[in-house]
Amino acid sequence: MFTYQQLFDFSKSVFDKMGCPEEDAIMATQSLLAADLRGVDSHGVARLSGYVRLWEVQRVNATPDIKIVHETPSTAVVDADAALGLVAAPIAMQIAIDKAKQVGTGWVSVKNSNHFGIAGSHAMMALENDMIGIAMTNASALVAPTYSIEKLLGTNPIAVAIPAGNEPPFVADFATTTAANGKLEILQRKNMDTPSGWVQTKDGHPSTNANELKEGGALLPLGGDKEHGSHKGYGLGAIVDIFSAVLSGANYGPWVPPFPAYVPMPENMPGEGIGHFFGAMRIDAFRSADEFKLHMDNWITRFRAAKTIPGQEKLIIPGDPEREMETERRVNGIPLLPAIVKDLEALGERFGIKL
Amino acid sequence: MFTYQQLFDFSKSVFDKMGCPEEDAIMATQSLLAADLRGVDSHGVARLSGYVRLWEVQRVNATPDIKIVHETPSTAVVDADAALGLVAAPIAMQIAIDKAKQVGTGWVSVKNSNHFGIAGSHAMMALENDMIGIAMTNASALVAPTYSIEKLLGTNPIAVAIPAGNEPPFVADFATTTAANGKLEILQRKNMDTPSGWVQTKDGHPSTNANELKEGGALLPLGGDKEHGSHKGYGLGAIVDIFSAVLSGANYGPWVPPFPAYVPMPENMPGEGIGHFFGAMRIDAFRSADEFKLHMDNWITRFRAAKTIPGQEKLIIPGDPEREMETERRVNGIPLLPAIVKDLEALGERFGIKL
Repeated sequence: MFTYQQLFDFSKSVFDKMGCPEEDAIMATQSLLAADLRGVDSHGVARLSGYVRLWEVQRVNATPDIKIVHETPSTAVVDADAALGLVAAPIAMQIAIDKAKQVGTGWVSVKNSNHFGIAGSHAMMALENDMIGIAMTNASALVAPTYSIEKLLGTNPIAVAIPAGNEPPFVADFATTTAANGKLEILQRKNMDTPSGWVQTKDGHPSTNANELKEGGALLPLGGDKEHGSHKGYGLGAIVDIFSAVLSGANYGPWVPPFPAYVPMPENMPGEGIGHFFGAMRIDAFRSADEFKLHMDNWITRFRAAKTIPGQEKLIIPGDPEREMETERRVNGIPLLPAIVKDLEALGERFGIKL
Repeated sequence: MFTYQQLFDFSKSVFDKMGCPEEDAIMATQSLLAADLRGVDSHGVARLSGYVRLWEVQRVNATPDIKIVHETPSTAVVDADAALGLVAAPIAMQIAIDKAKQVGTGWVSVKNSNHFGIAGSHAMMALENDMIGIAMTNASALVAPTYSIEKLLGTNPIAVAIPAGNEPPFVADFATTTAANGKLEILQRKNMDTPSGWVQTKDGHPSTNANELKEGGALLPLGGDKEHGSHKGYGLGAIVDIFSAVLSGANYGPWVPPFPAYVPMPENMPGEGIGHFFGAMRIDAFRSADEFKLHMDNWITRFRAAKTIPGQEKLIIPGDPEREMETERRVNGIPLLPAIVKDLEALGERFGIKL
């Protein structure tokens, strides 16, 4: 078990060693550890050595010149200059928030970026400004659209954070696939099969093999198959891809660069890096924030009070499990799998940092 | 088989008889018939007598004063004054488009409205302006969120229309449930069971009975159950509800007024009418429209060329089936079920209009 501060100090030191400016190293560490705090263990320090490897092969630029290359009062395209997405994302989200302060809403599409951690933490930046926050990103292709045997989309998550009054905020943050890759990894470790509708074989047949991706298979869009609405999950993943990358000039579809540094880059890439999309909407650009929050509290209270199916204690408001996890982990610490600890220790050894 | 013009003339005459101003009657007819043309038969003239009944009980105002009650450069809240949603929606979408012309994007939340037909037709208004269009609406509660046995959300559709160059536009338009209610009606007529994950019983047990809603059961969010990601479909439906109604001051959750005029209104309603949400994003607020369209063509061409699973001819780009249906029906006419024809004839008789 590690304290937040321990993992913070270690991760920040790694970003320091990569040559990130102080402010960027702090931002990157905060983005990264938001995942560990909220229980999305696949996206936190477990990925730290992966970011370092991308920096080693010069796909991550530790001293980027992140800048707006096109804008209107409510929009911007940001060139992240191959920055860590962990840094580019909060900067771009802040631009969206600043625009929302001026004209009611702000919308920022980002090109030439890298993996940005969890979408939810960026969307949540809007909350303290009494704004609704939206964050999404494309990712390398692991998902076969409905009827396809080729992998053409990433798990392309969407996060939407909505402030409430006395109630905690509504924070939805989900991959547009039936199950995120992290869920597969858990089943692999337990040597268990997946439920139906999560993966298909390399020939497009239904499968419940948690290792299917290693054998050329694909993740499936939310819905699983056509009969269960997978064309909707595919549509959502496609919208994330287009907003993040076709609007900004990043790579899209099968051309999105892979996260593992050892995987060769796709050929004939049509853009730069990976893409993100951020939005901020000021609540009082629609109605008074106090009025809105009263009704959000009413919404949340009513949903939370719903009668539940046998065996389930309560209805969950999006964001509840992650918030409860964060509260618990801030007190009791963050557990890491032995393999992750080993990976971090190797990283520490290399940079002369103690975990 | 009926020609588009036949159904147009008939429907417009009905709206005339309700006392809609000329311009509104035309708009309402166009919104309504977009569904029949695009093959969403449950949302077209099949609902015309339902709109009339809402007008009879004075829940639809044929001569509304639709107006902006709050705005910023990029946002507005519109009070639809109990208008037909078929009229309020294109007016609100036009406001979003006008704002996007000024500041890059426009976002409009609508209260005090009624059923607006299909979301796709409103989103598509953006296309001819080289904009991305977004439309969503809440609806009366037929859907049980994950773990709930109470129905708290509508089928709450989302539509996103994205222009391309030589390729036809990308138009996603889908309910945030595994299957829309119209799909259930088709199975009921054929006396067939549903696939798993579409409905549950009134006690929250899985079911494949296409008549389950009549027995107190519920539709399920996209995903079906937790194991298949239904918390994501529930999250999406909730976002549509909040953007459409909590932002605008309409009714939300279990308080959204029902479409059938004979169903009593919910008690203690927290808002006015039903709510919609519209967005328009000018492409060249991000990058040149020509450049964007080249890349959209590349995106669409690549996806369309994907290798497909056994037994499936091709990958479908969102909007393909509806566009092909429209082309076919504009030439060969629109088929109507005998029960719908009878319903329209009765309506015609009452108003002295010939079908």
